[in-house]
Amino acid sequence: MESYRDLGARLSNWNRWGPEDERGTVNFITPDKLVTAARLIRTGKMFDLGIPFGADGPQPGGGRVNPVHLMRETGENQDFPGGFHFADDYIFMPLQSASQWDGLSHVFYDGHLYNGYSSAHVDSHGAKKLSIDKMGKGIAGRGVLLDIARLKGVDHMQAGEVITPEDLDQAMAAQGVQVGTGDILLIRTGWRNVFTSSGDARAFMSGEPGIGLACCEWLDSREVAAIACDNWAVEVLPSETDDALPVHCVLIRDLGMTLGEILDFEELSADCTQDGVYEFFLAAPPIKFAKAVGSPINPLAIK
Amino acid sequence: MESYRDLGARLSNWNRWGPEDERGTVNFITPDKLVTAARLIRTGKMFDLGIPFGADGPQPGGGRVNPVHLMRETGENQDFPGGFHFADDYIFMPLQSASQWDGLSHVFYDGHLYNGYSSAHVDSHGAKKLSIDKMGKGIAGRGVLLDIARLKGVDHMQAGEVITPEDLDQAMAAQGVQVGTGDILLIRTGWRNVFTSSGDARAFMSGEPGIGLACCEWLDSREVAAIACDNWAVEVLPSETDDALPVHCVLIRDLGMTLGEILDFEELSADCTQDGVYEFFLAAPPIKFAKAVGSPINPLAIK
Amino acid sequence: MESYRDLGARLSNWNRWGPEDERGTVNFITPDKLVTAARLIRTGKMFDLGIPFGADGPQPGGGRVNPVHLMRETGENQDFPGGFHFADDYIFMPLQSASQWDGLSHVFYDGHLYNGYSSAHVDSHGAKKLSIDKMGKGIAGRGVLLDIARLKGVDHMQAGEVITPEDLDQAMAAQGVQVGTGDILLIRTGWRNVFTSSGDARAFMSGEPGIGLACCEWLDSREVAAIACDNWAVEVLPSETDDALPVHCVLIRDLGMTLGEILDFEELSADCTQDGVYEFFLAAPPIKFAKAVGSPINPLAIK
Amino acid sequence: MESYRDLGARLSNWNRWGPEDERGTVNFITPDKLVTAARLIRTGKMFDLGIPFGADGPQPGGGRVNPVHLMRETGENQDFPGGFHFADDYIFMPLQSASQWDGLSHVFYDGHLYNGYSSAHVDSHGAKKLSIDKMGKGIAGRGVLLDIARLKGVDHMQAGEVITPEDLDQAMAAQGVQVGTGDILLIRTGWRNVFTSSGDARAFMSGEPGIGLACCEWLDSREVAAIACDNWAVEVLPSETDDALPVHCVLIRDLGMTLGEILDFEELSADCTQDGVYEFFLAAPPIKFAKAVGSPINPLAIK
Repeated sequence: MESYRDLGARLSNWNRWGPEDERGTVNFITPDKLVTAARLIRTGKMFDLGIPFGADGPQPGGGRVNPVHLMRETGENQDFPGGFHFADDYIFMPLQSASQWDGLSHVFYDGHLYNGYSSAHVDSHGAKKLSIDKMGKGIAGRGVLLDIARLKGVDHMQAGEVITPEDLDQAMAAQGVQVGTGDILLIRTGWRNVFTSSGDARAFMSGEPGIGLACCEWLDSREVAAIACDNWAVEVLPSETDDALPVHCVLIRDLGMTLGEILDFEELSADCTQDGVYEFFLAAPPIKFAKAVGSPINPLAIK
Repeated sequence: MESYRDLGARLSNWNRWGPEDERGTVNFITPDKLVTAARLIRTGKMFDLGIPFGADGPQPGGGRVNPVHLMRETGENQDFPGGFHFADDYIFMPLQSASQWDGLSHVFYDGHLYNGYSSAHVDSHGAKKLSIDKMGKGIAGRGVLLDIARLKGVDHMQAGEVITPEDLDQAMAAQGVQVGTGDILLIRTGWRNVFTSSGDARAFMSGEPGIGLACCEWLDSREVAAIACDNWAVEVLPSETDDALPVHCVLIRDLGMTLGEILDFEELSADCTQDGVYEFFLAAPPIKFAKAVGSPINPLAIK
Repeated sequence: MESYRDLGARLSNWNRWGPEDERGTVNFITPDKLVTAARLIRTGKMFDLGIPFGADGPQPGGGRVNPVHLMRETGENQDFPGGFHFADDYIFMPLQSASQWDGLSHVFYDGHLYNGYSSAHVDSHGAKKLSIDKMGKGIAGRGVLLDIARLKGVDHMQAGEVITPEDLDQAMAAQGVQVGTGDILLIRTGWRNVFTSSGDARAFMSGEPGIGLACCEWLDSREVAAIACDNWAVEVLPSETDDALPVHCVLIRDLGMTLGEILDFEELSADCTQDGVYEFFLAAPPIKFAKAVGSPINPLAIK
Repeated sequence: MESYRDLGARLSNWNRWGPEDERGTVNFITPDKLVTAARLIRTGKMFDLGIPFGADGPQPGGGRVNPVHLMRETGENQDFPGGFHFADDYIFMPLQSASQWDGLSHVFYDGHLYNGYSSAHVDSHGAKKLSIDKMGKGIAGRGVLLDIARLKGVDHMQAGEVITPEDLDQAMAAQGVQVGTGDILLIRTGWRNVFTSSGDARAFMSGEPGIGLACCEWLDSREVAAIACDNWAVEVLPSETDDALPVHCVLIRDLGMTLGEILDFEELSADCTQDGVYEFFLAAPPIKFAKAVGSPINPLAIK
């Protein structure tokens, strides 16, 4: 198998949108793509793809914990003129603990970030380049769901089960939909069900079905703008090679493609199966955290 | 002047969408409204209305601090197979410290939340009713900008300066746009400029121009779905009466209308002035924080 | 068995040190007690009884998480004149997630805190009465270790195993030490070993050996100033009765006795066994968190 | 003036306590010093030198914010058997935002920490060497207060006012006390009053009186174990040279001396003036935060 470095070098988008670019493949979403995507809103059905953010989320502890939500004001023991009361609250969380976009500064290798920026731009002060707020004017466009779990007739695929380009092609054919330039591709593995059925964060995080390295070329050739999944790392784990997260390396650092993770496609999938429509308008703006390497999201799919 | 309690009782939407409703006026955004709103995406121009989230934000301290962003991993001193490196980060913040939706559990009086829910539903465990995640399947629809600062020919209106229904009517007339059922109304006061020009959080928070109590009836009669402003509390401060935040009380608790605050309309305003188009598709999904009384947002306005 | 309410009423210290008192039994540590305690520093051996505070602590998640330590500055990418570099860091944690004093506002029943204060003094703004900083001028004095695990000849006692007054008496006799007015009593169950040997936070938190209700009278009659243990709740769990944490209720709310929890007595215990000296000077100042209901500690035992 | 680098090289304690040492000058506090120090507890008077930790502390914002205290449980809406209620709370704070020990990993230059450890030991994962928990078995011993503000007859010294070795000598003579091996030296500048009288964090942080570089040799020659002050950086600011924090560099990195900052000596000072006794037992244990570069403290001075 071609090494991920060779693959990344071959597919590289560095300098494709100029030496100053910090947005990568979302550049494929040109204004005309947005106009076309808007026409997919035909019935007004809306699906929210973010999971709940709270203490019972999918993080088993370690480097990332689940969001901790704390009330600052509950309305009690307030004495404002006229009887006004208010509640207020705080959150403490890893920005990538639940539904999220990976920023392009999230992953790198060999001392370089996407577009050739030095990895020294990421330090304890945050990301001076490629931070998630650079994606603030986005991410929205045509969304397409490829439902691989349904294609394979399973509630959920298995940890370590690789999604191949052929799977993607077959899903397109079976669903009667095409993936093209500027699309935001959603791939359903059913892995979210492993967590929601058991509440077992450790099982959810122990591995996952996901795309293999060969899909990188598929995504590149179709000029996909972004990819998002219902697992926690998009790519298959354990990996096909001995490398740690090689698909992350190629997609984020070489293609400049942001990854959406820990999403919930169950309601959307059921609806698509019913009406046979697997395309929609997708609006998934990141919160503009300055110098951050990722952002929580709640993507809206609207048909 | 009619007391805010009398006004609230008169305009009340309690039980309008059933006794179990937790979404209030966003119910005005019916599927057909979404379909119609989508047609406003004509050129693919996109505007991100969220402000940057970081240490230099508009909170001067006290009950709310600015977001504190901390890196957990920077890529240094990692030793993953194959050369993979990753960065990861945490945020600590009040959920309403920057661009935000107020949840319907954020404000109440006389022991009741919107729709008659007891205020006892809000306690140190969070909001059992009317939490912001109940708005997760939203908030998107037709957005309309009424640019009151421009109407008055000022860079920014003054603290304590009341926006009246007549101002709103005049802005509609001057701009050639109507506000109707299910619209998300953006009102520009220019107050955001007070902060961005000086960086002075204390000045920004010391008061603000905003809508007066009379606008509540205007918003109610037009069946507006949500309102959002470039100040920090939507309503004029100091208030017209001796009551604390009476517009909050009426809109959130009686009408069930969520408020968007601390937004940036400068780029959008400039564009609207140029092309004369003050309506657009707006996608502003809250992050689904469980039991939370508000959420950070980055609304996308798309023409 | 006498109900914990009856027991608490019988042993109550309310008003013993006046109606304004917020310090409870630490009042037993009078200046002369401090002078006497200081004479126990005879060889200069020092033992630090706090456990490490970090991500791999004994909290399995839920209401309390382990401390999250995050670096703000690491020295890299700084450019101060003369070559100065500094590192800086943040902590996010439940105040009672590791070694700790319970404040007297930590536990209550029937609407009253210690000394008759209304429980309404504790709200989302913190504790207006009996907060831990009221103990700031302390807690130090004569410490005595009663090593019950060693008395019973076990590495650690079992969950649900009750320590009785007879156990305490036998330990005093076996060790040749008396517990008296103003002493800070340390009781070793060995339960800490359950966590350190396995790293299993869930096992550690699933129950514990500890003192039973009958010990409350024993502690009261000897005028003990404070009690601290190497388990996480001082008292036996599951409890002897169907009540939740009845010993907490009696000691904290009725006697006004603060509890020290999640401490490490292993090194101290080994030393005491060797030299036969079970008394020492103990200095365990809480950090003065305003309005807090507990504080992290690192008690020093000095012989 | 000798450069701080030359001064540091001349006074260096590297390797004095072996190549593995991580405790520096606190090694001067030998067991016999502890025994002698304990004899200073003669009347049982106790002074707590920590300041309150809360939202109204001395941090004006920026890299360090004041501690944010949030309640997790207030006792309301709990339903435990038997009527038990509990309160619980969280803290978010920079470890050096209020009363604190600087760890020996807090400051460095020229790529080396104290004792020659590479500064690469400090990264986004924390301090692998010289973290504050290495001081866990301490810091306690003989404390001596040199009251320079009182010597100069002022409420507080001025920002930029240098404390010299002569000042220290004169204070010793005036107070009739000697500073010697293993002592923890407290220097009072009165600067704490600038904050407590005005609540103005910015004024407090804008500069300070403190020791100058010449005092490093004085501290070294007397074999002082640790130094602590009522300002926020021990040393005079603005500095005597163009270097940033040169006294920090020499004391922490070359001598291996930990610094105590943002303490409150007012009550202690008043008492010392009254009884003429400027020595006492001091117990100031750091909380054992793993890999941390500093710790909050509440030092107890006991006479």
